[in-house]
Amino acid sequence: MIQLDDSPAMVTVGASLFADALTAQVATPLQVQWAPPVAGSEVDLAAVAADMRTHAATAESVRRLIATSPRWVDVVPAREALGLGSGEFLHAGPPVDWANASGPVRGALAGAMIYEGLAQNFEDAERIAAQGAISLAPCHSRSAVGPMAGVVSASMPVSVLEDGEDGRRAYCTLNEGLGKVLRYGAYAPEVIDRLRWLERVLGPLLSQTLRRRGPVDVRSLIAQALQMGDECHNRNRAATSLLLREITPDLLETGARSEDIVAAFRFINGNDHFFLNLSMPAGKLGADAGRDIPGSTMVVAMARNGTEFGIQVSGTGDQWFTAPAPSVKGLYFPGFGPEDAGLDIGDSTITETTGIGGFAMAAAPAIVLFVGGEVSDALDNTLRMYEITLTEHPSYKVPILGFRGTPTGIDATLVVRSGVLPSVNTGIAGREPGVGQVGAGLVVPPMSVFVDAVRALARRAEPRGALTAPGMKEPS
Amino acid sequence: MIQLDDSPAMVTVGASLFADALTAQVATPLQVQWAPPVAGSEVDLAAVAADMRTHAATAESVRRLIATSPRWVDVVPAREALGLGSGEFLHAGPPVDWANASGPVRGALAGAMIYEGLAQNFEDAERIAAQGAISLAPCHSRSAVGPMAGVVSASMPVSVLEDGEDGRRAYCTLNEGLGKVLRYGAYAPEVIDRLRWLERVLGPLLSQTLRRRGPVDVRSLIAQALQMGDECHNRNRAATSLLLREITPDLLETGARSEDIVAAFRFINGNDHFFLNLSMPAGKLGADAGRDIPGSTMVVAMARNGTEFGIQVSGTGDQWFTAPAPSVKGLYFPGFGPEDAGLDIGDSTITETTGIGGFAMAAAPAIVLFVGGEVSDALDNTLRMYEITLTEHPSYKVPILGFRGTPTGIDATLVVRSGVLPSVNTGIAGREPGVGQVGAGLVVPPMSVFVDAVRALARRAEPRGALTAPGMKEPS
Repeated sequence: MIQLDDSPAMVTVGASLFADALTAQVATPLQVQWAPPVAGSEVDLAAVAADMRTHAATAESVRRLIATSPRWVDVVPAREALGLGSGEFLHAGPPVDWANASGPVRGALAGAMIYEGLAQNFEDAERIAAQGAISLAPCHSRSAVGPMAGVVSASMPVSVLEDGEDGRRAYCTLNEGLGKVLRYGAYAPEVIDRLRWLERVLGPLLSQTLRRRGPVDVRSLIAQALQMGDECHNRNRAATSLLLREITPDLLETGARSEDIVAAFRFINGNDHFFLNLSMPAGKLGADAGRDIPGSTMVVAMARNGTEFGIQVSGTGDQWFTAPAPSVKGLYFPGFGPEDAGLDIGDSTITETTGIGGFAMAAAPAIVLFVGGEVSDALDNTLRMYEITLTEHPSYKVPILGFRGTPTGIDATLVVRSGVLPSVNTGIAGREPGVGQVGAGLVVPPMSVFVDAVRALARRAEPRGALTAPGMKEPS
Repeated sequence: MIQLDDSPAMVTVGASLFADALTAQVATPLQVQWAPPVAGSEVDLAAVAADMRTHAATAESVRRLIATSPRWVDVVPAREALGLGSGEFLHAGPPVDWANASGPVRGALAGAMIYEGLAQNFEDAERIAAQGAISLAPCHSRSAVGPMAGVVSASMPVSVLEDGEDGRRAYCTLNEGLGKVLRYGAYAPEVIDRLRWLERVLGPLLSQTLRRRGPVDVRSLIAQALQMGDECHNRNRAATSLLLREITPDLLETGARSEDIVAAFRFINGNDHFFLNLSMPAGKLGADAGRDIPGSTMVVAMARNGTEFGIQVSGTGDQWFTAPAPSVKGLYFPGFGPEDAGLDIGDSTITETTGIGGFAMAAAPAIVLFVGGEVSDALDNTLRMYEITLTEHPSYKVPILGFRGTPTGIDATLVVRSGVLPSVNTGIAGREPGVGQVGAGLVVPPMSVFVDAVRALARRAEPRGALTAPGMKEPS
């Protein structure tokens, strides 16, 4: 029998067990690198490892990623920000043509053509697109990212995020809200009407607000939201709340029509995902900072178009490594089930690419109510990602892990070497055009895209140091 | 050597260790009741245990507590809501007179007298008060609660919270913001000017907003904020954000002067603790629901006035059990240290009395940056409180504990029996009148007040069942 005086020693013991288990797992490097790499990739991994540029190049990629300071500076038409002309459209994920486009991408493209006055209805849009009369390109090829179908056309207002360090920019459309929305492939008149309101009212009003207020520090908002139960991909309730607090005073003082101000506040207030369209371009700015460093094995894009899942790696430039898009495991909205689900879609995986989203799930345990699973899964997902990442984010921290930084900067060779795939949270689009969102869940990327990326890195490797023992300097 | 295929089994094992430790501690009743009770209290505990009313009475107290549905319905002058006349003042904690009042209470009373036009300055107020020309009563005696010094005077606007179930009401002043404020004993002209603005602008504007909007569901906001890193005593950032989202649309549509609307938004937006003055009366409504049930051992008030720490228990009516107020262990603002600190003060312990605050710290691990300690302390505090509480709150849940309800309804006999004292988060007031807040931290209530309460319960016990074996029914 244990006796207690005023200090509850026994309870502390119990709680220490908890703390110890947590500390042990957080602090101990799980030795998954002891496992054999994905079969067939040994030679490529060896070639990349023999590339003397790799270590420094990859370190430089992730250094640039975490040094990025994304600030929301303006909202302008895509025509102006991205140089999009009439008939030019961006979409999520790797390149795809109309013939191979998924239902949500076709629905969103049709909606965007109707919105731009290029088509009367879906059938009309389908006919025009099938004739090759529209031009398609990935958002990622224009410093942009788009959630779900990710369709951007010339008249749509886009948020401009600027890096406080070097002035680079990244872009994303305004979040349309929930229900039937273009990004989930819906194109009904209400969808088009909302796009017009975004263009004519909300976009200009936010532009006025930001010019009046000055830039919004998106990195700071993400950092705070991670301490408030968001992971800033599938849960953005805290971040959207904080964003409203940041911009409302200046919104109120724009001198705009009172009914427009109220409508703007109600619109953002009605959609907890509004902030996603800022966390995404914030990630894009960070990932792009780490691009195009020869020898770097850091992943700079993971993106899907509902047909293919693709990645890009710093050391291989704009080359996409793709595989068929996987399906998402998750929870469905009432009235929908797996048979209604499209395949994995959207550029929102830029969040996981840059240390938040599924990689920060431990900060957002309540998200399991939305995407399924247990609270321990949320912790596991984050802990596992330390195995395939290059650093811990200096600004994005997880309170429950003792304020450890989130696992940031995916190393393609670590993925192939360990067999551990990135953890991704995502929404689920209906498979047919016009349906909208049907659920949300978790998805596992295809391993082959990482294997292919490592192969491409191996082909570009400069094995000058192949005969040099590890730790020895090359002759200069 | 463990080999991995696509599924990272080893990592899952590691994470299960964590999950198991968590589950074990959450699920296993730690057997602290095996420890001997506080010396000298055995006879009283036995007498209370022999009171056949106790079990049902205590269960009814906590049932009523958790059934309470607090809604913010209006903001009205204290004169009207609480029937306060000129020269009548409420204060935090158990009863105290001017001669024994702490520095912060004296400062706040002087400020309130200046604000009400009853005194010109501190010395003037001190003289008038020392003559016994003012009337003092605890907030708790008037269905009200007040943070820190907790001073309420007739002209101050107070929030009205109403129970959706039975229409009972509870009251609290509007939070004045940070820095030099009346509740921390400051009385400078800026403090008085702010009180006038609350009375003339913010109070009426919030009243208009609430009448236009209808009641705000405070229970729902607390429940959501606990999933967003707040514990709703010393951390209210999420709750204040959600509150702003709830009221701003109607605030904008009141038709009030635009500059007043902007000032109101900026004022609430500038103070993450604004919501505390709603979580406190929400707690008061719940605690009062459990009052005055003969035989009930549930604590219905824990409150401090900077001189004494006092509690009230359901079965002993309005009787206070008091002891000298303890000092707070915590973190100090720059330029301050323990030598500047007043003793424990305020009615904000109503949060811990009703299952949030320190009892919900596991939901708010980031709070350790404000009150000190490690993340594991936050978890420990909540886990330990299950030992002295009657139930788990059905609405207030902690995601990281697998959505377990917060430990709710303190049983005075469990405190004495186990030696486990309530965990309280709190602000630290400067010891001298006029200073303001100097820090924040954790405080441990004096055990003697619980011992005294159990003694009083024992004296009122009706040992009709003393000769009846446990489980046998009394003859009717």
